[in-house]
Amino acid sequence: MSSSRTSPSTGLTGAAQFPHRHLTGISGLQPHEIAFLLDEAEQWVDLNRSASKHDDRLAGLTQINAFFENSTRTLLSFEIAGKRLGADVVNMHAAQSSVKKGETLIDTAVTLNAMRADIIVIRHSSSGAVQLIADKVDCPVLNAGDGWHEHPTQALLDALTIRRRFGTIAGLKVAICGDVLHSRVARSNILALTALAAEVRVIAPPTLTPTAIERMGVTPYTDFNQGIAGVDVVMMLRLQNERMNGGFIPSPREYHALYGLTPERLEKAAPHALVMHPGPMNRGVEIDSSVADDPKRSAITEQVEMGVAVRMACLDVLTRRRRGVEGWA
Amino acid sequence: MSSSRTSPSTGLTGAAQFPHRHLTGISGLQPHEIAFLLDEAEQWVDLNRSASKHDDRLAGLTQINAFFENSTRTLLSFEIAGKRLGADVVNMHAAQSSVKKGETLIDTAVTLNAMRADIIVIRHSSSGAVQLIADKVDCPVLNAGDGWHEHPTQALLDALTIRRRFGTIAGLKVAICGDVLHSRVARSNILALTALAAEVRVIAPPTLTPTAIERMGVTPYTDFNQGIAGVDVVMMLRLQNERMNGGFIPSPREYHALYGLTPERLEKAAPHALVMHPGPMNRGVEIDSSVADDPKRSAITEQVEMGVAVRMACLDVLTRRRRGVEGWA
Amino acid sequence: MSSSRTSPSTGLTGAAQFPHRHLTGISGLQPHEIAFLLDEAEQWVDLNRSASKHDDRLAGLTQINAFFENSTRTLLSFEIAGKRLGADVVNMHAAQSSVKKGETLIDTAVTLNAMRADIIVIRHSSSGAVQLIADKVDCPVLNAGDGWHEHPTQALLDALTIRRRFGTIAGLKVAICGDVLHSRVARSNILALTALAAEVRVIAPPTLTPTAIERMGVTPYTDFNQGIAGVDVVMMLRLQNERMNGGFIPSPREYHALYGLTPERLEKAAPHALVMHPGPMNRGVEIDSSVADDPKRSAITEQVEMGVAVRMACLDVLTRRRRGVEGWA
Repeated sequence: MSSSRTSPSTGLTGAAQFPHRHLTGISGLQPHEIAFLLDEAEQWVDLNRSASKHDDRLAGLTQINAFFENSTRTLLSFEIAGKRLGADVVNMHAAQSSVKKGETLIDTAVTLNAMRADIIVIRHSSSGAVQLIADKVDCPVLNAGDGWHEHPTQALLDALTIRRRFGTIAGLKVAICGDVLHSRVARSNILALTALAAEVRVIAPPTLTPTAIERMGVTPYTDFNQGIAGVDVVMMLRLQNERMNGGFIPSPREYHALYGLTPERLEKAAPHALVMHPGPMNRGVEIDSSVADDPKRSAITEQVEMGVAVRMACLDVLTRRRRGVEGWA
Repeated sequence: MSSSRTSPSTGLTGAAQFPHRHLTGISGLQPHEIAFLLDEAEQWVDLNRSASKHDDRLAGLTQINAFFENSTRTLLSFEIAGKRLGADVVNMHAAQSSVKKGETLIDTAVTLNAMRADIIVIRHSSSGAVQLIADKVDCPVLNAGDGWHEHPTQALLDALTIRRRFGTIAGLKVAICGDVLHSRVARSNILALTALAAEVRVIAPPTLTPTAIERMGVTPYTDFNQGIAGVDVVMMLRLQNERMNGGFIPSPREYHALYGLTPERLEKAAPHALVMHPGPMNRGVEIDSSVADDPKRSAITEQVEMGVAVRMACLDVLTRRRRGVEGWA
Repeated sequence: MSSSRTSPSTGLTGAAQFPHRHLTGISGLQPHEIAFLLDEAEQWVDLNRSASKHDDRLAGLTQINAFFENSTRTLLSFEIAGKRLGADVVNMHAAQSSVKKGETLIDTAVTLNAMRADIIVIRHSSSGAVQLIADKVDCPVLNAGDGWHEHPTQALLDALTIRRRFGTIAGLKVAICGDVLHSRVARSNILALTALAAEVRVIAPPTLTPTAIERMGVTPYTDFNQGIAGVDVVMMLRLQNERMNGGFIPSPREYHALYGLTPERLEKAAPHALVMHPGPMNRGVEIDSSVADDPKRSAITEQVEMGVAVRMACLDVLTRRRRGVEGWA
């Protein structure tokens, strides 16, 4: 079984390769732990491309997807991942939930725990909500995005996509472009990519750049053309007007004029540069269709595919202790 | 395995019996292909009536039900069909979907495809949306109703219901009554029933009759009593005020007075005439309760039952190629 | 198999232990039948606490959860229960259902029946809706709460929780506190606890106490301190403003002042008294957090856990006939 393998790079086996109980963020992960999750995901890429995409290692386990914030894509991805691994998967939608009746988040967590969930996948509009739940339950918790905080499986799927295209991440120049301030995707990606030794830049208007972002090991740019010059990867963010309360709210037209990825701007990047976007895209706003659909440059559909594989890896790894997998007991 | 059988009527085996990649409509199907799907459905009628209604032939396959338009019954029917065949079934509800965030339909299709769906079942309020998706994905697509265009599994389940009651469809007189203009059910049924050599009439107000419907091989009537005279099957349509924008909108009372199926009107049909309705019914509007609940004449619950069987047949047949079933590779 | 065991207390085996086709309420159940369901639930408590919480006895059966009223917790509990027993589980949400299109409840029932459901779990805002459906379908029906009528699995899980804590229910003093008038939870609990020989009191304002409740074998109190004196179990109800139309509507503050469970009030109960609440809780209204979270006194999370076990028992027992289990054919 894969879990008893010795890692060629670290010499570690079993739980030592990933000692964490939860996956609440990329923050706190060691580079070899991130790499371990990416390594694990590779087998699921293969399985998902095969004729019968099913494995039974999570049979008998209950996975609850507790989505307090709507997200069709991410929910679908986690649901498919769990079902392909044989788990009993149930979705809890916020819109129908007791939360509306005034129940506290902790009461909801305690309830899911009492139903003997084996793993809980959480999406919430408040930063820190996932950690709050993780502190209250006996089973592993997987963050599917919380507020402006983190979206770790997005960062892992992005890293896997890049690693498969370039063979490595270390030394690559990656530009993350757009509303960095409100983006958990940006935050998790900065943490993952800098841990894996990429050279990360962010390109954003000053009002959408977190203060003191340099401390994260990142170089900020406000001018698109300067920031993109020579990069290997251009990672666009979704313009999320819904998260901006107060402050500078650009019109889609203004935003496109200043920060939209056009073919002309992409020419400033390295000739082999990869274009990424976490989806769903606002075509014609943060990205032009001709770029998004470029078969050579765009890795956008690959990202979606890697998403399922990465989530299968996380579900598998985080439940190894309770499944009594050798080396993880 | 059933798929390697030689058809007694056509002498065809395997993929030659159903060479289509998708099922986007009845249009384009040969009569023997329609009959083949009905033949295949028979085994699922039997299974669904047995104690253990489960088969594992879709095990390891991912079925995504992408419903951009609400439909509890049809979704339930497809979900039950897929689960009874052992597929990993996931539902994507439009109300929660990225579509609301402005994602294009094609981006959604590409996303579902990248998650490596093995079959996608689609319902959409726009005619042609299903074909648009079918053109963009690698897996089979099954139309669960698109706009005013087609609803092929409804036509198949109706045909199966009729065939089981009368032994054949050829030569039967079938009247389709109601809002034919806005009805994909009517359209798919006209295509299927004329292909199977029934004599089809439509009964509708002039404003709810498609122009030049005679070209579909159908005789239009505006007078209910004339249209229903001597028919073997009376197929009522649901009055769908929600689809009528502009034009003649009858009140429920007016509609019932002119086009509601009453016991008196039913007496004009053949004494053995079958009453059908795709559901959900507006009792007292397009159909009287005494007719809808007549145990001898009404086939309405049978239609629901045949729906699950027909959908199991379609899911099975459309996935044979990717499952490597003999003769379908 | 457990179903062929002879009951030590009654000498009954098989179907004689539970001769009912449906579970629409506690009303009509014999004390030994209630005890039988609790006995059956014990095995599922054990399974749910084990590493692999899955059994395949409902494999090949279709369970439809038809929820015409939102309830995340109860739906989750039934969905998890069914999936852990291997059923093909599908949810029908009212918000998306044909009911909105004007379909009658009976038509919906007939439709679910025609899809060959093996068991239907129903929640509905109207008292009696579940019985109406039960009369129209061929398969067992399980009431998951209907109007002000009954919520039998809630009463069973409460009884199981109490029995596991005290070893027995007979002779215990139980106070049910709050909006008794509008509470199906109260009603089902009164029926179950009096059948099992507990001494039941209700504590409520006169306007929220059903008239002639003494005929149910219950002593009504309007004064909290008098009602709670010396009881073994304090069962709080949720304040459900949404169900009160007309009549006395207390503000949360007033309600708490008169009928909220505070540490001071709890001191009037027996020193070992157990605190229960069906959830979701309005903290600071009908119950104080210090009481709800008291690790010794509060059984609130245990109730949630017992809920899954009790529902597994009901699903198992009610489907034995159709599964051809020995003694139940």
